[in-house]
Amino acid sequence: PADACGRQEGCIPRSVADDLAHEFLDPEHPEEHLEAPTLAERDQLAKRESGVTPTSSMRLRMEAYIKEQQAQIERELEKVEGGKKFKVDTWTRPEGGGGISCVLQDGAVFEKAGVNISVVYGSLPRPAIQRMRANHKALDPDVESLPFFASGISLVLHPVNPNAPTVHLNYRYFETANADGSPNAWWFGGGTDLTPSYLYDEDTIHFHKTIKNACDAHDKTYYTRFKKWCDEYFSVKHRGETRGVGGIFFDDLDEDETKKSQEELFPLLPGLSGQLLAKLSAYYRTEERHAIYGQGEGVAAAATGPICRVQPCARSGYELRIEHARARIESILMSLPLTARWEYMHEAEKNSREARLMEVLRKPIDWI
Amino acid sequence: PADACGRQEGCIPRSVADDLAHEFLDPEHPEEHLEAPTLAERDQLAKRESGVTPTSSMRLRMEAYIKEQQAQIERELEKVEGGKKFKVDTWTRPEGGGGISCVLQDGAVFEKAGVNISVVYGSLPRPAIQRMRANHKALDPDVESLPFFASGISLVLHPVNPNAPTVHLNYRYFETANADGSPNAWWFGGGTDLTPSYLYDEDTIHFHKTIKNACDAHDKTYYTRFKKWCDEYFSVKHRGETRGVGGIFFDDLDEDETKKSQEELFPLLPGLSGQLLAKLSAYYRTEERHAIYGQGEGVAAAATGPICRVQPCARSGYELRIEHARARIESILMSLPLTARWEYMHEAEKNSREARLMEVLRKPIDWI
Repeated sequence: PADACGRQEGCIPRSVADDLAHEFLDPEHPEEHLEAPTLAERDQLAKRESGVTPTSSMRLRMEAYIKEQQAQIERELEKVEGGKKFKVDTWTRPEGGGGISCVLQDGAVFEKAGVNISVVYGSLPRPAIQRMRANHKALDPDVESLPFFASGISLVLHPVNPNAPTVHLNYRYFETANADGSPNAWWFGGGTDLTPSYLYDEDTIHFHKTIKNACDAHDKTYYTRFKKWCDEYFSVKHRGETRGVGGIFFDDLDEDETKKSQEELFPLLPGLSGQLLAKLSAYYRTEERHAIYGQGEGVAAAATGPICRVQPCARSGYELRIEHARARIESILMSLPLTARWEYMHEAEKNSREARLMEVLRKPIDWI
Repeated sequence: PADACGRQEGCIPRSVADDLAHEFLDPEHPEEHLEAPTLAERDQLAKRESGVTPTSSMRLRMEAYIKEQQAQIERELEKVEGGKKFKVDTWTRPEGGGGISCVLQDGAVFEKAGVNISVVYGSLPRPAIQRMRANHKALDPDVESLPFFASGISLVLHPVNPNAPTVHLNYRYFETANADGSPNAWWFGGGTDLTPSYLYDEDTIHFHKTIKNACDAHDKTYYTRFKKWCDEYFSVKHRGETRGVGGIFFDDLDEDETKKSQEELFPLLPGLSGQLLAKLSAYYRTEERHAIYGQGEGVAAAATGPICRVQPCARSGYELRIEHARARIESILMSLPLTARWEYMHEAEKNSREARLMEVLRKPIDWI
């Protein structure tokens, strides 16, 4: 069902943006009609005028969600840490947008924990549009460039105790806009996965169950599909291994791909990040885990040398994806662990938790 | 001056290979003429028959040089270490060739020292030939594939004391062959550079003087040209920094590029690696350096935390170049330091050796 303007029900409500466009059309100065507001300016004005409401554009609602989620994660992790606080840096891009980087380093529980959000406005050149068209037919193939909006939240937790797992999480929303600020194409992406150095089946099963529950609330087919996607996406080719025990990954989720509207898809993101957050502290805070990790082989290994920890990144051949040429490099590199170690020809002891991990890295298995 | 066969004086002497080709041409079984020996087989047989002499092909002489140099480096570094020995691994590739990896880990002087050689025979597909033609006109553009020979030596030294510099060295020879085993195109490449974590001008000047002397013995224009090439090649774009205080780098040195024959160019490699080796122990062994490094700010920094070392790779965004899909991954990753650390928003103290290093990483200077 389409409305009077031919827009699909459930698409972005554009009344605020439309109003703004009218404001800029000054009949006394017709030449200024050419100076249409940029996407960033439109959004800035819409926020100032009406705030962010359930009928705001997806751009504004996504920004509000990642900001709230970041603040919540920060509060939750500071509780887990019990003392040390996050260092908060706010940065802006000259081309529009910016971000907030929160990093907690050298903590009692986390050697490095980072949760970043970014909101970026920019211009997508023709070659990039051509490449993206493979997955998004809605993209206009006949323009030299398209304004775009990209926003996302990413979380990386590197615990001090090598027996506790590293957690990665990232959710994002991308949109290209027509000249009048209306969406040209849009999609959601992201995922979350677990990277232990020593295999604790109970942690892994708990993690997969948590995200399966969150997926099932939206679509019963998602978990299985996204779990496989994750194993493939995070395979480290030169090692013949995955980077961890998996989780979920998805990208390019638009209306064509999912047969769902933007309104139907959006809640998947807060659903996933919210459910995981509620369970996350289980790995790091409970007395029971603490007692188990405190005697794990990772701690024993660390005691035999100055820093005998085999960090996950040693296995993953960490790929830095520096997507925007003018990205803030400190915010990207914060996802690296504080310390890493590359041992030549390292071999795990037979039947150890490390050896059992290596098996599932080489051949991913189902956990539920 | 060309010989009767139209070959340039000073080119690869091919008598051994020619003889071998005749051996394979059995007049009783003309169909076997199609089964010409592979390049690896030719070289294997030539070595068995005549050993490696000053008139052997460049392939054989290069292999002999890197083997000798590796053994010499190993002996020299074991003297510096004073106890710990290199672990030696020999590996082969099913397609022909192989290598020797020597790694010394957790030593008294070196946290990780590696010296590898490899000799690889393979087949270069058409797209790779097309790419390489940009620099080497001798490459035949009309074939589907070309047999190639690639050989090289690489050395990486990561000292335990953060005040001593990391050293990289790599020299290589590449050749493509025609169907009869004669060279189609060939070139030399390589370089050596210094990566300190804390700037000691005297080390840096000593290093640059050593390699300038070795360059000057071959061509007075080389040092200046190769020093600039190194600064450009090892610039880390996302950091806006070079990976260290430089040295030399060169690639694609063939007859067109240098107006020198293979015979004239080859001695540059043993000259460079030999001269550096003779001086290398100066950084790690002398009483004087030992006393200076022992009180440097790197040691002081390490004392304030569990592992407060800022490793060079933290700055260089280490790029792993996994050139051959079936390369032995442990031999490539051995070049990574044993330990690394990524601190969020790390800032060097004003006027410290670390701060002075950052200045020259951002803006390379001349050292001689």
